[in-house]
Amino acid sequence: MTAQRIDGTVIAGELREKIRTRAEAFLAREGRRPALIALQVGESASSKVYTDSQARAASAASINYQLRCLPESASEADIRNALAEIGADDDIDGVILQMPLPAGIDTHAMQMAIPPAKDVEGVHPENLGKLYYRGTRSPAPCTPMAVVKLLRTYGGTLAGKEAVIIGHSEIVGKPIAMLLLASATEAPTVRVCHVATRDLESHVREADILIVAAGVSGAKYGAWKRGARDGETPDLRPLIPGEWIKSGAIVLDVAINRIPAVLNEQGCAVLDEERKPVVGPEGKRIVTTGDVDYESAAERASAITPVPGGVGPITVQVLLRNTLLCAEQRETVK
Amino acid sequence: MTAQRIDGTVIAGELREKIRTRAEAFLAREGRRPALIALQVGESASSKVYTDSQARAASAASINYQLRCLPESASEADIRNALAEIGADDDIDGVILQMPLPAGIDTHAMQMAIPPAKDVEGVHPENLGKLYYRGTRSPAPCTPMAVVKLLRTYGGTLAGKEAVIIGHSEIVGKPIAMLLLASATEAPTVRVCHVATRDLESHVREADILIVAAGVSGAKYGAWKRGARDGETPDLRPLIPGEWIKSGAIVLDVAINRIPAVLNEQGCAVLDEERKPVVGPEGKRIVTTGDVDYESAAERASAITPVPGGVGPITVQVLLRNTLLCAEQRETVK
Repeated sequence: MTAQRIDGTVIAGELREKIRTRAEAFLAREGRRPALIALQVGESASSKVYTDSQARAASAASINYQLRCLPESASEADIRNALAEIGADDDIDGVILQMPLPAGIDTHAMQMAIPPAKDVEGVHPENLGKLYYRGTRSPAPCTPMAVVKLLRTYGGTLAGKEAVIIGHSEIVGKPIAMLLLASATEAPTVRVCHVATRDLESHVREADILIVAAGVSGAKYGAWKRGARDGETPDLRPLIPGEWIKSGAIVLDVAINRIPAVLNEQGCAVLDEERKPVVGPEGKRIVTTGDVDYESAAERASAITPVPGGVGPITVQVLLRNTLLCAEQRETVK
Repeated sequence: MTAQRIDGTVIAGELREKIRTRAEAFLAREGRRPALIALQVGESASSKVYTDSQARAASAASINYQLRCLPESASEADIRNALAEIGADDDIDGVILQMPLPAGIDTHAMQMAIPPAKDVEGVHPENLGKLYYRGTRSPAPCTPMAVVKLLRTYGGTLAGKEAVIIGHSEIVGKPIAMLLLASATEAPTVRVCHVATRDLESHVREADILIVAAGVSGAKYGAWKRGARDGETPDLRPLIPGEWIKSGAIVLDVAINRIPAVLNEQGCAVLDEERKPVVGPEGKRIVTTGDVDYESAAERASAITPVPGGVGPITVQVLLRNTLLCAEQRETVK
């Protein structure tokens, strides 16, 4: 079997057009576009890359986007105040609190200060909590919703299938588990594996649906598993080799690992005979890969997402759709 | 192996004494006891049994308990108003909204109207949502917390163990999964099975920790699994036969099934050679059993809870402890 390659860019484009149509209808009714604001505290090397990308995506979907910056020295009270102002601003529908926050800031406390009705990333506990409730509509975290969208498109019925999630982070692995368990009678059986899992391979081999979001790079995970110490060469093999994949499985790779490697002409990492990426002379070439060894997994899966270009582009559209839904919701309660 | 019988009554008694000591210290500081109110809407055959039992348990732990009743005809607005009054009453620390609510009332909407700081059953989405966050303190649902308490007492380290939960209800199965996944590096691998699970036996056979909370009686589940139709005699065999239990497993049976059966001198159901309870002449004898066939499971498990007298008595103490914690929390923010 050669897997269908799930082209996230194409699905994202279809979603964007639906959002744009509804956003323009909103503009016609309300005289303004749905509006999203990103609150950035301090700056990191990659923060401008993210916010520029958000701005472009929002513009293409006819969503108004603004960036508000607080200095690295901002206190928790400063961040709370900025979030409260955003909550009170009738012209703003959604807010992203950019992560990571500077060291010393209590991330959970800041997430709890996001106004729940404008929480387009679904990270406020009230919105996370609604994911336990069946049939309740609320903004859900973007990556988990992107995963559900892909499963609805490619997964057929989920009832009774074996779904294996790798990674138990607060805003990816755990909410995916809750979303998959939403149906009273048609849910898949769900298991959540992570770094402490004793025999990852045996779980992966049983997965009809495999969702990989380890949240650590394959390299770090591999090193952890193999007991590497500081100074040792990390094991850069992907976390999930293709031979573990159950024949016909759907494989969704949510991980984004940036590793130093040598690239081939197609921009993919050059792999040695053990399928380890060949590291560049100074170890400075950075390659983006998932946690799954795509080429070998694609020989066994029925459908698989590449990294990049799989789940990622859909996640951005979910963010914009959540903004639109928050805007429409605020319209109805006015 | 013969399993250790986990006597929930003994553990509950120890918990009650700790709560009582702190409740009396609260009384000495504040001049009043921690106060719990139960809001009962309409009446069911069993509601008085529950509230009487809550009242006795509260009294024994030095917690003030009152019952407020609304008529069966109460509207959602009436219930909201009662909950808002309770929220504003400085002399009340915790509220239980008794289930089930009358037909036609939106249960989720009413749970969302419970003041989160007095939500001693942990069913408001804000409190359920905090269970995703590691290390955040909030009232958690009582049965899941009772399960965690038992695992801490009997389970040794949980890291990497195979934990299998049967049942994916909103306030038992799902919160148990989130609580077990709370540790970043020391969590067990968690799977959630339910009525749609294809091969329940294979999952149960791998469980180092088995938590059974199907939320349907073994009889109903058995009938569902075996395709019984209306009018057919239901299959009353327990959902989980002992032969499925992994040697040395910890088995926590959260189910409470009331089935018509013949009792022996010890008050247990008389079983025939297939371990089915013998039904009484008019099918009117009611026996309380779990979802696990205790006798045969105890031959393989290392520790197991009976039903009744296992998880149930601890659940009541968690409710009282949540009341105490809410009272102490309100003290510190005054």
